[in-house]
Amino acid sequence: MSGDERPRRLTLGALVHGSGGHIAGWRHPLARPDGQLDLDHHIRVARTLERGAFDALFLADVVAIWGHDLDSLRRTARAEHFEPLTLLAALSTVTERIGLVATATTTYNEPYHVARRFASLDHLSAGRAGWNIVTSVVPLEAGNFGRDTHLDHTLRYRRADEFVDVVRALWDSFADGAVVRDKAAGSYYDPAGLRTPHHEGEHFRVRGPLNISRPPQGHPVLFQAGSSQTGRDFAARHGEVVFTAQTSLAGAQGFYRDVKARAAAHGRGPDDVLVWPVLAPYVASSEAAARARLEELQDLIHDDVARRLVQDNIGDLDLSGVPLDGPLPAIGVTNRSRSRQQLMLDLARRENLTIRQLALRFAAVSSVVGTPESVADHLETWFRGRAADGFNVSFPYLPGSAEDFVDQVIPELRRRGLVRHEYEETTLRGHLGLRRPSGRPAGPSRPCAAEVAGR
Amino acid sequence: MSGDERPRRLTLGALVHGSGGHIAGWRHPLARPDGQLDLDHHIRVARTLERGAFDALFLADVVAIWGHDLDSLRRTARAEHFEPLTLLAALSTVTERIGLVATATTTYNEPYHVARRFASLDHLSAGRAGWNIVTSVVPLEAGNFGRDTHLDHTLRYRRADEFVDVVRALWDSFADGAVVRDKAAGSYYDPAGLRTPHHEGEHFRVRGPLNISRPPQGHPVLFQAGSSQTGRDFAARHGEVVFTAQTSLAGAQGFYRDVKARAAAHGRGPDDVLVWPVLAPYVASSEAAARARLEELQDLIHDDVARRLVQDNIGDLDLSGVPLDGPLPAIGVTNRSRSRQQLMLDLARRENLTIRQLALRFAAVSSVVGTPESVADHLETWFRGRAADGFNVSFPYLPGSAEDFVDQVIPELRRRGLVRHEYEETTLRGHLGLRRPSGRPAGPSRPCAAEVAGR
Repeated sequence: MSGDERPRRLTLGALVHGSGGHIAGWRHPLARPDGQLDLDHHIRVARTLERGAFDALFLADVVAIWGHDLDSLRRTARAEHFEPLTLLAALSTVTERIGLVATATTTYNEPYHVARRFASLDHLSAGRAGWNIVTSVVPLEAGNFGRDTHLDHTLRYRRADEFVDVVRALWDSFADGAVVRDKAAGSYYDPAGLRTPHHEGEHFRVRGPLNISRPPQGHPVLFQAGSSQTGRDFAARHGEVVFTAQTSLAGAQGFYRDVKARAAAHGRGPDDVLVWPVLAPYVASSEAAARARLEELQDLIHDDVARRLVQDNIGDLDLSGVPLDGPLPAIGVTNRSRSRQQLMLDLARRENLTIRQLALRFAAVSSVVGTPESVADHLETWFRGRAADGFNVSFPYLPGSAEDFVDQVIPELRRRGLVRHEYEETTLRGHLGLRRPSGRPAGPSRPCAAEVAGR
Repeated sequence: MSGDERPRRLTLGALVHGSGGHIAGWRHPLARPDGQLDLDHHIRVARTLERGAFDALFLADVVAIWGHDLDSLRRTARAEHFEPLTLLAALSTVTERIGLVATATTTYNEPYHVARRFASLDHLSAGRAGWNIVTSVVPLEAGNFGRDTHLDHTLRYRRADEFVDVVRALWDSFADGAVVRDKAAGSYYDPAGLRTPHHEGEHFRVRGPLNISRPPQGHPVLFQAGSSQTGRDFAARHGEVVFTAQTSLAGAQGFYRDVKARAAAHGRGPDDVLVWPVLAPYVASSEAAARARLEELQDLIHDDVARRLVQDNIGDLDLSGVPLDGPLPAIGVTNRSRSRQQLMLDLARRENLTIRQLALRFAAVSSVVGTPESVADHLETWFRGRAADGFNVSFPYLPGSAEDFVDQVIPELRRRGLVRHEYEETTLRGHLGLRRPSGRPAGPSRPCAAEVAGR
């Protein structure tokens, strides 16, 4: 680290999936089976995370039942979850400092709605909102919005690109300080500080202005997970935190370098984009006990769920009636774009895995298993090795695994000086060391009447 | 009242417009000028209303800056407000009993989003959610969603009709009790209790199922304000609380009879639809002091605001440069459908009102001015006279006017036995005495695989 660089601090997000992120997490003895919809459960988890001074609480989302098939879904807690912004708004009043990050799709939303909901959350939480931008990939989502299949991948990202531009322009409708609320003068806002976007683009025509003051953070923090080339480039352009599933240190380092290089190509500095691999921790006082904890959960995966896990991840495959403890049936490579799936398929062949064994690999992806010290070692190695600026910690069962992590791993990370002992800032941008967008430069005031007449 | 009828109870909603419902409310000495976006202010108001055992806290909404013109808007607090569901979700954790009613438009939304957000709020609040169904009328809204003008009135209502049907079917995706969350058996829900809507209609194609259990209330309570023939018929079919602006007892009685008759024509009982006229209270210890309170507020209306108030309400009229203290200029009747506007125009001519005087009439519409006793008299007369089942109380300035009403008028209403002394139920349906929708009848279970294959 060069002398004039400010010290890096490892940042932490918490992926909260109701009763747990592991496919059988809700069945764990330390999970709340009704955790998907129980508000008190979510409050307890959020407060635990604040005790650990987590930077952000992160809610994933799909606008459908979460999966491909109802036969296996009925064995999992993925049948239901809160709409994320609704839940985070509720949590904003019972938490103090933690960032609140909700997923929202650009494919099945309107920019005006998204802009005002995140601006509302940012005002409600005094600057703690974040938006995880997704373009939707789960097939059942399309059917809830009048389509048989999703838009083509490239078109989805083109739409997302314009969507984000519109949302940012809407957030900037009122300049900082333009809303003066001067009772005596009868002046609620200064018209010189209002810019109506009048956006007209390929996918959207949005007049504006947004009907809410500029968010406390300027813009809520933008999160994104791009793995394809298009996705990575989108992340490099818009993302401020990029999270990613990485299975090896070398692979993660490559991804990290790639994202920072792409960001630089867009004129952004290395500190403007944080890279967060996803990590699912299994922690106990010995390696064997931690391993047993994971095994206990793996044993709770129902046969139907195991079969669908492989089928949905490989694709182009029908496993009905195929024995779980036998090998994968022969399969032609019909979809070359699914590189990660192909990788798993190759792995199964090479290691001679049964379908069940392969399902267990899928279920345990991103797992880090060990003692508080060895888990901290893992985080430190990836952090110091420039494979990660922080981690999106996906808790396998809740509230149990969050409590274990906060009580056992966080103290170890603090002892090593990797994370702070308590919050030092009040906003999510502050926690993450991200700059506040300055908004548009001050310009000559346009008369309001002309703006109205112009449309 | 016949002997076997259960006693009617007067129900009360509170229309909360940030710093106040009066156009100059935010400038009142007892208003918070930053009340539009201040969470603590909203919490204080909500708790005041719970102290008064109000049935519901009601948030109006438009998906735009709230008005026609930015010149006058900059003089009002209508430039900004929270997105209603986001604010109500936040309030759900800091209130105990009050119903939480948010406005959402069927014209610029998707049924799947609306269904899950209100279902989420109903779960978060343990059965206190309500949806005020609107079709959008403010011109600036259209421009935020790619349109120059709104859909035609009839088409808007046709879309709204189908929209509500889809939302209801989505709420019924899981039967009551179908989500069993049985850890031991590994069964999260009973597939026999799932019905996937597979809706295909004129405006929407929505597969479903909704990704959340049936709401605690079955369906959140449906609110609506229909004044046109189409609107009234829509209200009679779907509305469970219908609110309305009425200026005379006889007019309100006529509206009340009409709504109940239309509801009966749809096979609904008189208790299935409650009628709530809007009422803006100005209360003080003497009639003169109450009158002075209204006048004080009227004096705070800026000239630009007064001019636009008349212009926007009459329509087809340009008042720029016309003296406020002179008469309305001549105007041809170019839009006969605007019956209420025509009525006001006739009134201005008949009473020889200046533009300013007409503006003050608009600003004070629905006002009830007086002592706690005389305001209670008004409510009692309308309630006993079958002009109202309750009222949507629009507070002119906040928090002041809500505190006055709860401290002065509510005790008087309690003394008269018109309202209850404290909450007796936990859900909004319970408060209002509305039946919980039974959901679909139990039927033969359809195999899930067939449902998936069937799409």
